[in-house]
Amino acid sequence: MINSSNILWHQGKITISDREKLNNHAGVCLWFTGLSGSGKSSLSVEVESLLFSKGIHTYILDGDNIRHGLNKDLSFSDADRKENIRRIGEVTKLFVDAGMIVLTAFISPFRMDRDFVRSLIPEGRFIEIFVDCDLATCEKRDPKGLYKKARANKIGDFTGLSSPYEEPKNPELVIFNGENTDLNKNANLVIELLLQKNIIRKG
Amino acid sequence: MINSSNILWHQGKITISDREKLNNHAGVCLWFTGLSGSGKSSLSVEVESLLFSKGIHTYILDGDNIRHGLNKDLSFSDADRKENIRRIGEVTKLFVDAGMIVLTAFISPFRMDRDFVRSLIPEGRFIEIFVDCDLATCEKRDPKGLYKKARANKIGDFTGLSSPYEEPKNPELVIFNGENTDLNKNANLVIELLLQKNIIRKG
Repeated sequence: MINSSNILWHQGKITISDREKLNNHAGVCLWFTGLSGSGKSSLSVEVESLLFSKGIHTYILDGDNIRHGLNKDLSFSDADRKENIRRIGEVTKLFVDAGMIVLTAFISPFRMDRDFVRSLIPEGRFIEIFVDCDLATCEKRDPKGLYKKARANKIGDFTGLSSPYEEPKNPELVIFNGENTDLNKNANLVIELLLQKNIIRKG
Repeated sequence: MINSSNILWHQGKITISDREKLNNHAGVCLWFTGLSGSGKSSLSVEVESLLFSKGIHTYILDGDNIRHGLNKDLSFSDADRKENIRRIGEVTKLFVDAGMIVLTAFISPFRMDRDFVRSLIPEGRFIEIFVDCDLATCEKRDPKGLYKKARANKIGDFTGLSSPYEEPKNPELVIFNGENTDLNKNANLVIELLLQKNIIRKG
């Protein structure tokens, strides 16, 4: 995807292609999707660390920086969850256009919403990564204590319990991230894919 | 602002400081504000060109990529104009945190809204640039034919005519961008400021 010619820069608006030449890697979105507790955030942090150590320009969008900022006016109703993913998709599009590798870590349970984001991003630049972990293991991890609250009926519409999770049909990558998983090994599977797709370069 | 020590990178979440070391420039926001037709967009494009030619990581947020994307659900009512700037502020904050120099080109007529964005962004990273151009010149330029429509009462609440523009009280920079202005010269005033503030380095 990246072009090896010299930087040819013109007056006027800088394009994604100009930015990719400056960065020496492509601008793409790594969209991590999966149940709460499946390890999306940990995996995205590990992948970002590996990429950053190679001098790649990355950014993570997650609940921490989105739900407390841009989307703090949104509830967890069906309409607002849809709007949540729509806005994240639009911001993701901007980061991709800026030539970054943007990693997103959101449950994003509905196929229609994820496909909407895919439709926003230029062809080949939306990499859907299904972080596959069985519900029992996710619930055992319960990093934020959310399953416990949901089981006590303190949270309605909880993905995996009272609300469905729609697995991706054709994700670019599936990471099995169950019990006794090796985070670094799994992160390297993502790196392998980016090398194969010529999104980043070896070295 | 940028730190000249070697890249020291740790496991875990990458910080703005890590990104600034990788990029060799600071992450800041250049917030261009002024009347419609004052030249905010042209100036931001020119500044970006100059920065990009120095290998600096930049991105422009403007009506083109925001009003047709993230904020396409918003009208021009008072409440929605406020929400428009709020969302742009939150996205700007993410780009600054990602270590980029993000340039924004929006009329943003209300002091309160601009000050809200300033409050979101870490100290010293919000550079407010007032693009000062008299109304008559803006109306003569009328690049999008909006003044004509507003004079024909086809647009309500038009900044400068039927809705106020509140000039910044203490902007980091004022660019006089009236008739016979030299865009490149004005863009270089912005570059000078970034050098003075140690946001970018000479060379």
